[in-house]
Amino acid sequence: MKLYGVGVGPGDPDWLTMKAVHVIQEADIIMTPISNQDKQSIALSIVEKYITNQKIHRVIFPMTSDPIRLQVAWEEARNDLAQFLMEGKTVAFITLGDPLLYSTFIYLKHSIQEQLSNLSIEVVPGIPSFVALSAMAQIPIAERDENLVVIPVIRSLDEVKKAIELHDNIILMKINKDYPAIVELLDEMQLLDCCWVGQRIGMEDSIITNQPKELLNGKLDYLTTMMIKKKR
Amino acid sequence: MKLYGVGVGPGDPDWLTMKAVHVIQEADIIMTPISNQDKQSIALSIVEKYITNQKIHRVIFPMTSDPIRLQVAWEEARNDLAQFLMEGKTVAFITLGDPLLYSTFIYLKHSIQEQLSNLSIEVVPGIPSFVALSAMAQIPIAERDENLVVIPVIRSLDEVKKAIELHDNIILMKINKDYPAIVELLDEMQLLDCCWVGQRIGMEDSIITNQPKELLNGKLDYLTTMMIKKKR
Repeated sequence: MKLYGVGVGPGDPDWLTMKAVHVIQEADIIMTPISNQDKQSIALSIVEKYITNQKIHRVIFPMTSDPIRLQVAWEEARNDLAQFLMEGKTVAFITLGDPLLYSTFIYLKHSIQEQLSNLSIEVVPGIPSFVALSAMAQIPIAERDENLVVIPVIRSLDEVKKAIELHDNIILMKINKDYPAIVELLDEMQLLDCCWVGQRIGMEDSIITNQPKELLNGKLDYLTTMMIKKKR
Repeated sequence: MKLYGVGVGPGDPDWLTMKAVHVIQEADIIMTPISNQDKQSIALSIVEKYITNQKIHRVIFPMTSDPIRLQVAWEEARNDLAQFLMEGKTVAFITLGDPLLYSTFIYLKHSIQEQLSNLSIEVVPGIPSFVALSAMAQIPIAERDENLVVIPVIRSLDEVKKAIELHDNIILMKINKDYPAIVELLDEMQLLDCCWVGQRIGMEDSIITNQPKELLNGKLDYLTTMMIKKKR
């Protein structure tokens, strides 16, 4: 029995690592998180062409901050996983981006290690979304002695403002809900032209722009990442 | 004529992306930075098994902060590159980690774009060293709403201390010269047990440890990365 946490990158199947491809091809079961029963797994669509006889097991992680609903979902996923592993199966749990950077895999790993203490686990790193955004926009994430801060969830606009004041390069993730307020803040700080936004990076319908105001009219996707580079 | 900036990850050839492998296999010329004539290129050793008939062109980027010596090196590299491209060649410039995160490729890209304004460039993202360190140590880089700061060069210990005070997770890169002072600081801040260090991550002689003091006795490698996770 062995569990792999496999990062599949943010979208383009060509951003899979060689290791991820081998692990997926040799797994008995591919486990993938979905937000509800009707939703497709984006992670699964990225690895689709390497799936042959592997069993696909979807686990539902509801998009909620309700700790009880989340707890129930994690327990169910953990129990399913434990059963597969105790049957001697090799399971590849696939996640968007990297498995240990803001990913569902982190919770599952904690939880299954408590239940099966002698379990062999291997983590396969993946390309984070902001690394891919930088490649698509062809704008450096950071260079020389510049520092970099990554904020995954907007706790407050004040926190964002302070981060911008203190750092050379700022990555904001999952900003769909706060997008209009962030654009307004950047406008006030005269930083709109130092800003790149990527939505569904690497997917066929991806949008990469350095005109953040253009995205104000449409519905923003959950998978929206912003890179702010202060002038030096 | 086309220029690819290709990230090959920090060490393990299996961390190459599918895209990186395709680009390397189809390039006419592989360009690789080395620090002096006698040194091996680590990036080249990572892609070695995909090299067949591609021409290898090593360019010397001396390990110096002398701006004039660096300027001369970059100009020479840029001129060689321009000549290959004007001959209609496809050139893959390979770099450790990611090409747009603290990499030599950033300077070369700026410089060649000034000279050949209609040049087609594509950037292939790579796994950054700290993402691989986290995978090897099996310790999350960041989770939930935690933030993350990346400091590539230690400008002052004070800056490191402030970064630790302000953030949940801290990545310090290229810390070999400052290592004893950083370990002392972490000891004072009672954070030594929240700290993981990786050296030559993914290579055969790599060291991953959460006992930072163990590394104080030997000679530290230039490729040393530290991950600090504050208790919450």
